[in-house]
Amino acid sequence: MCGVFGAFSPKMEPVLEDVYLGLFALQHRGQESAGVSWIENGIARSIKGMGLVHNAIPQGIASSITAHAAIGHVRYSTCGDSILQNAQPLTINYAKGAVAIAHNGNITNSDGIMKYLENRGAIFQSTSDTEVILHLMAHQSHKMPLDALMDALRRIKGAFSLVVLLKDKLIAARDPWGFRPLVMGRRGETIYFASETCALDIVGAQLIRDIEPGEVVVVDQSGGLSSLRIQTKPSKGFLCSFEFVYFARPDSVIDGISVYQARKNLGRFLAKRCPAKAHLVAGMPDSGTVAALGYSEESGSPFEMAIVRNRYVGRTFIQPTQRVREAGVRVKLNPNRLAIQGKEIVIVDDSIVRGTTASRVVSLIRSSGASKVHLRIASPPVRFPCYYGIDTPSSEELAAARFDLDELSRQIGADSLGYIDVKDLVQAIGFPEERLCTACFDGRYMEDDVNGIDL
Amino acid sequence: MCGVFGAFSPKMEPVLEDVYLGLFALQHRGQESAGVSWIENGIARSIKGMGLVHNAIPQGIASSITAHAAIGHVRYSTCGDSILQNAQPLTINYAKGAVAIAHNGNITNSDGIMKYLENRGAIFQSTSDTEVILHLMAHQSHKMPLDALMDALRRIKGAFSLVVLLKDKLIAARDPWGFRPLVMGRRGETIYFASETCALDIVGAQLIRDIEPGEVVVVDQSGGLSSLRIQTKPSKGFLCSFEFVYFARPDSVIDGISVYQARKNLGRFLAKRCPAKAHLVAGMPDSGTVAALGYSEESGSPFEMAIVRNRYVGRTFIQPTQRVREAGVRVKLNPNRLAIQGKEIVIVDDSIVRGTTASRVVSLIRSSGASKVHLRIASPPVRFPCYYGIDTPSSEELAAARFDLDELSRQIGADSLGYIDVKDLVQAIGFPEERLCTACFDGRYMEDDVNGIDL
Amino acid sequence: MCGVFGAFSPKMEPVLEDVYLGLFALQHRGQESAGVSWIENGIARSIKGMGLVHNAIPQGIASSITAHAAIGHVRYSTCGDSILQNAQPLTINYAKGAVAIAHNGNITNSDGIMKYLENRGAIFQSTSDTEVILHLMAHQSHKMPLDALMDALRRIKGAFSLVVLLKDKLIAARDPWGFRPLVMGRRGETIYFASETCALDIVGAQLIRDIEPGEVVVVDQSGGLSSLRIQTKPSKGFLCSFEFVYFARPDSVIDGISVYQARKNLGRFLAKRCPAKAHLVAGMPDSGTVAALGYSEESGSPFEMAIVRNRYVGRTFIQPTQRVREAGVRVKLNPNRLAIQGKEIVIVDDSIVRGTTASRVVSLIRSSGASKVHLRIASPPVRFPCYYGIDTPSSEELAAARFDLDELSRQIGADSLGYIDVKDLVQAIGFPEERLCTACFDGRYMEDDVNGIDL
Amino acid sequence: MCGVFGAFSPKMEPVLEDVYLGLFALQHRGQESAGVSWIENGIARSIKGMGLVHNAIPQGIASSITAHAAIGHVRYSTCGDSILQNAQPLTINYAKGAVAIAHNGNITNSDGIMKYLENRGAIFQSTSDTEVILHLMAHQSHKMPLDALMDALRRIKGAFSLVVLLKDKLIAARDPWGFRPLVMGRRGETIYFASETCALDIVGAQLIRDIEPGEVVVVDQSGGLSSLRIQTKPSKGFLCSFEFVYFARPDSVIDGISVYQARKNLGRFLAKRCPAKAHLVAGMPDSGTVAALGYSEESGSPFEMAIVRNRYVGRTFIQPTQRVREAGVRVKLNPNRLAIQGKEIVIVDDSIVRGTTASRVVSLIRSSGASKVHLRIASPPVRFPCYYGIDTPSSEELAAARFDLDELSRQIGADSLGYIDVKDLVQAIGFPEERLCTACFDGRYMEDDVNGIDL
Repeated sequence: MCGVFGAFSPKMEPVLEDVYLGLFALQHRGQESAGVSWIENGIARSIKGMGLVHNAIPQGIASSITAHAAIGHVRYSTCGDSILQNAQPLTINYAKGAVAIAHNGNITNSDGIMKYLENRGAIFQSTSDTEVILHLMAHQSHKMPLDALMDALRRIKGAFSLVVLLKDKLIAARDPWGFRPLVMGRRGETIYFASETCALDIVGAQLIRDIEPGEVVVVDQSGGLSSLRIQTKPSKGFLCSFEFVYFARPDSVIDGISVYQARKNLGRFLAKRCPAKAHLVAGMPDSGTVAALGYSEESGSPFEMAIVRNRYVGRTFIQPTQRVREAGVRVKLNPNRLAIQGKEIVIVDDSIVRGTTASRVVSLIRSSGASKVHLRIASPPVRFPCYYGIDTPSSEELAAARFDLDELSRQIGADSLGYIDVKDLVQAIGFPEERLCTACFDGRYMEDDVNGIDL
Repeated sequence: MCGVFGAFSPKMEPVLEDVYLGLFALQHRGQESAGVSWIENGIARSIKGMGLVHNAIPQGIASSITAHAAIGHVRYSTCGDSILQNAQPLTINYAKGAVAIAHNGNITNSDGIMKYLENRGAIFQSTSDTEVILHLMAHQSHKMPLDALMDALRRIKGAFSLVVLLKDKLIAARDPWGFRPLVMGRRGETIYFASETCALDIVGAQLIRDIEPGEVVVVDQSGGLSSLRIQTKPSKGFLCSFEFVYFARPDSVIDGISVYQARKNLGRFLAKRCPAKAHLVAGMPDSGTVAALGYSEESGSPFEMAIVRNRYVGRTFIQPTQRVREAGVRVKLNPNRLAIQGKEIVIVDDSIVRGTTASRVVSLIRSSGASKVHLRIASPPVRFPCYYGIDTPSSEELAAARFDLDELSRQIGADSLGYIDVKDLVQAIGFPEERLCTACFDGRYMEDDVNGIDL
Repeated sequence: MCGVFGAFSPKMEPVLEDVYLGLFALQHRGQESAGVSWIENGIARSIKGMGLVHNAIPQGIASSITAHAAIGHVRYSTCGDSILQNAQPLTINYAKGAVAIAHNGNITNSDGIMKYLENRGAIFQSTSDTEVILHLMAHQSHKMPLDALMDALRRIKGAFSLVVLLKDKLIAARDPWGFRPLVMGRRGETIYFASETCALDIVGAQLIRDIEPGEVVVVDQSGGLSSLRIQTKPSKGFLCSFEFVYFARPDSVIDGISVYQARKNLGRFLAKRCPAKAHLVAGMPDSGTVAALGYSEESGSPFEMAIVRNRYVGRTFIQPTQRVREAGVRVKLNPNRLAIQGKEIVIVDDSIVRGTTASRVVSLIRSSGASKVHLRIASPPVRFPCYYGIDTPSSEELAAARFDLDELSRQIGADSLGYIDVKDLVQAIGFPEERLCTACFDGRYMEDDVNGIDL
Repeated sequence: MCGVFGAFSPKMEPVLEDVYLGLFALQHRGQESAGVSWIENGIARSIKGMGLVHNAIPQGIASSITAHAAIGHVRYSTCGDSILQNAQPLTINYAKGAVAIAHNGNITNSDGIMKYLENRGAIFQSTSDTEVILHLMAHQSHKMPLDALMDALRRIKGAFSLVVLLKDKLIAARDPWGFRPLVMGRRGETIYFASETCALDIVGAQLIRDIEPGEVVVVDQSGGLSSLRIQTKPSKGFLCSFEFVYFARPDSVIDGISVYQARKNLGRFLAKRCPAKAHLVAGMPDSGTVAALGYSEESGSPFEMAIVRNRYVGRTFIQPTQRVREAGVRVKLNPNRLAIQGKEIVIVDDSIVRGTTASRVVSLIRSSGASKVHLRIASPPVRFPCYYGIDTPSSEELAAARFDLDELSRQIGADSLGYIDVKDLVQAIGFPEERLCTACFDGRYMEDDVNGIDL
């Protein structure tokens, strides 16, 4: 999971600062590194760094540069080392000029392409799958850059939402299955692309629409928008349902659906599917809060902030010394003892991956005096790994793949454990089932050979 | 406002790490600087730095040092420059050995003492009022350190909750009015002192009790606790009511009162005192959330997270460039447009100081399509400055001191504005009125001459 | 001008530290950046940084890594930006594995090769001419790396002394004209390559011999040395005479000639060619000191350290503020007033490029009370730019190209000015004239088309 | 050993930059830390840092500040930790205003004064003996600052050359024995004080005269100079003879004697006292070079640069790993093998302290093929520790105190070893014997009770 942002203005403007703000709003999609790129006198330039946006990109420098267009990226490492070299956007200056690219997703046939190109003289600088797109372009150096890009996009398989900067164009592209969200907005004459609508809000832009699966939108110097197609639209979409469950910010809207509303609905469906007589309902901060509100409304049990999150924890790395291990989750979360003592309590979380945190929190709640702890999960059991850009472990480490419901409940130490099923999930989100990817829940992956022409 | 923490163990232990964790839990009380001090071979040593605890104190170093005792401090600058020299704990090695001190509060007669001591040869290193305590001790170099400290505490006026480290003792002291909280806990044989109970929780300590106003608790090498008195107890207490309104973490308990419960009660009283017919109730994140839950419960209007806070903002400094000014509060807060549109909405906040944020948020909510915005404040109007450790502006800048309720509502742009009164505040917290300081609301300050013997 | 170093041991050893020490001894050949590369599990790795060796390469890290082989580089920027991206060694991992390269010299046909390769899909990361060698190799991905390297070396024109690291080989190569020095040494079973013998001395290695012009020496895992030829040896050599005049360290030996001895001879020839009746002879520190000793011996006038160099100046950058401009060369050099007053003095320097320093020093000496100042230069006038790796300005800026001897003497403010001629230079060094490059003195450049096969 | 510098102008000027340049010229007197202080609006301010001047003091900041006066210090740690807290100048703001002080020397009764003041309430911030002067002033807070300073100077014993900055005055003071040099210069209306004349040269100032032993020179706002006396002049002076032997820069002039000339004379006396038939004379770089020139002139054997110093070594710290130990002195020094082979050689050094370097260099020279190595020392044997500001080891570690001449020669591995005697030293320098301190050679220390009134 990553976040991308692009801005294009017919005037020379501090668009890098728009990107800075946009990335700031997309910070939840990646905290490992951040960067912004633009083109100056035909040369692609970048400011990139490790960590959060305000650490990685000096705002003062970003605001002092004017350009027609810029793109940005926040990275959540899905594979590879956590090093600056892998920070995006990636930039090159090749035979046909400058290109900058920022990518959210996972290219599934990158290894093969890499080998193919290396045998033709390519020298790869990173292990990032994004770099293959640039090399595919460079190996079509006789074509115009946009044509070379279209050609490259037709050769790659997997998930991608991209923004690409050429000397005179800003391009947004989304894979034919629409795995990852990508929206387009406008403020005055400036066009914006972003992973989520919350990033349009922060720059004061109005949402125009979502980029369609398989669509490539091009903005050029004339200010005009044109739309191209990567290929014939496939029969089924694969919009990642986990965006609604966990990734996206609750104030974002994906394909017309409010993430907040979807998450509350997930809580309501959960309350119907797995009711529990309880004195109070609490959310696991912050991921389960919205669903907990839905659960509370549907069940009638009052919502309480029974667990308090240390809001300064952020990205702090704490070494697991003896004392820190003793402190355990208390470093980040602390129960409201007086609100819990002697109470029967429902804890709502968005999902269980390895189950480690869940079991620690249940134990903490119990030791704070709760008489019963019912754990409720506002999504189906995660039983399958994701190949499209999410950093899930293999099945052997997925708690719900290893244990049945009763055993898992015992492992976690809860008095009861409840999930919704995939049907609930789809209904709660409010999309036709054939448009959502639910592979991590039911193992129904996209068929690999749908996309990708042979090299 | 600041936070203090102290730990004392009969064994040599990594107590610095306990302090590190304790400060981590007290981070909300000060983000300007942090530090930890201990005594090694009779010499006072410190690790201090600017910014958050994990930036200021290298955890690896803290965890590699063992000692019997250590104290720590997080600083929220109330006056003076924001420089490392002012970071606490302060340490000295004087004629009678090493002393380290960490202070939460404000000494009101420090200027006079400073001048008195300078004329007797003292050289002050900082402008911090805390340093006068150390110089008062050094100028009684014929007395034993504890006696010199008691003497110094009897000469200073104002608010203080202190932890002091001597070669063989850890001392906690609270001024006779009990302005700032200070608690004592225990885990095994280790004794802890902390500004709030949440810092005891993180190290797994059990609360013993609050330090009483005017009490000085001494832990010595034998592990024994003894209690001294600064002076005869005054007739009235002055525990800061703003600790319940805003400062303290909701999971803390002050003098037996749950901050979370008090804050919910403030919301309930607010709903009774200033009802509003509304489709939904929302809290200003994060300061108004708990009171909003109370308001929602009392009023029956559903609680919604209508405003989403960017949880990565933290202590980020953002330069107010043109773009950032346009973005305004959106940098930190974003309305859930689909949840708000066409709705009549109650926004609950903890207090209004200058009124700038309130007016920006009201305008943002309105522009997101709310039909009506009712602003409700879960405390009385702040009309008077604080002299006891809180960084409030002078009356001329306090919105509620400048305007009456109607005018203030207009200035902020709300459809209605409501506050509770001081009586509500006292009842909601659940303390006898004569134990709370409500000076910032009603101007009833402590009489200055109650404390302080002449030099 | 740059410095290169390579080490190969049949055992896994801390060879990076040998490289560290070797670069330390070669520091005078480049102070802009430094780096070391090695191959670990088939992957090329590097530690590089700006500035001096001990700033650029953390010694602790270098000494903690063991490997069979490593190469290193100190860079003196001859063109391009002064940025880390241009620091060497350059490393790639291409279709046939890992390659690291360190280069001293200047490739004169790199622009054409770059364009050729870009049109075939190459993406260049730097503007360094060294990178073309790597791309030439990658574009022969069907060949074994050593063959691809030999092919690449046959396609490039200009000056190069290279060390190249492959997975199982260390290679040293010198262009067919032998522009830049390159020597081979041995300590135990470890083979070393270095730009100068002083770098062999520091690691305790014995000089085996100089790499011959056009020779490629390969060390492989078996420990065996083999020698290849880039092409038929050309009729004339072009060993840079400026290495003897200025670049090389006086304790180095190039092709059997002691640099110190050559430099003293230059001073002796200078005393014969341009005698001066003087009370004392002084060298411009530190570049003219050795020649001044020779001048003193030949002329009989005593040698004095009349100008003292601040030995802490090093690479210090001093901003040219008003005060600093007033201080002028005094920031680095200060005359020994009492040794100079009333004396007739000969100042010996190695060369005059722009003439700025010479004129400032002459004026400083005069203002310190010298009665006469005779400037003597221990090389012929520099009248032509260098295209083979030295950062000389164009002819318009070369003082000796702009003015005749008398006019130049006046411009500099000396009472007399004297040079040796090219014949003296060749004799003083002691090499056959047809083996030395004297192009910067007499404009007799290598004919461009001698090397380089068509692409 | 340390260096001090002060500048006073009747106009507001960038005097901090003068100090910056002055310290730059005094860098050889201390490389541990550097600092500059000035007074702004009655407050003493400082910029200090570890390491060399250009690392410790950002030149850009120094040149952007204007003031009437400033003082500076370079520190060579003689005792105490190497920490920023001990960097000078020291500054305070006490009852009578601001004071800044920079000190070269060693106060021998500081422990007693410290204890005395602590018992009267003083809190010391550092373990530096310089701080006692400030506390002595503060404890006379009823007196005007200059009077309090004079009083303080009369109470301290030992060696000091000081510059002191008050709100409206710059003061230079030298102890009654004149241990350390201190000079006064002028450029236009600006008055300068410096440890050595080379620092006057760099700012273009003319030497006025040396500050006399026991003299206190005061410059005030009127621009006028006045001279005060610490006490009646003692019968004997103690100017440190090691300043001529080693410390001072050869281009400096102390009390009318050229350091360069003195050092050459030491070499000449050495040649007379301990002749040696040799093919060549070489100096140990850089400390023995000037004396070697004198030896060569007197003996007739030619001077050669037989040992080359890596001029980039500077203050580089190199970890003593296995490889570095093997490299030994070669890291810094490398013999000119071709100049040495088969030759009988005289090596001249300024002094032998522990003897470690001497023995390493002799062995290195021998292994480079010298047939004989005669070591000649241009000062008498160092047999006694220094208590006045030089960092010499105790007698047990002084090579010349442990062994007689023959044994020492054997230990070092030289074919012969020769020293001058104290009489030679005094004559070579050219001062009356009763004005020089030769205690480290002959143990004739100052009698302790000459100075210092009782507290």
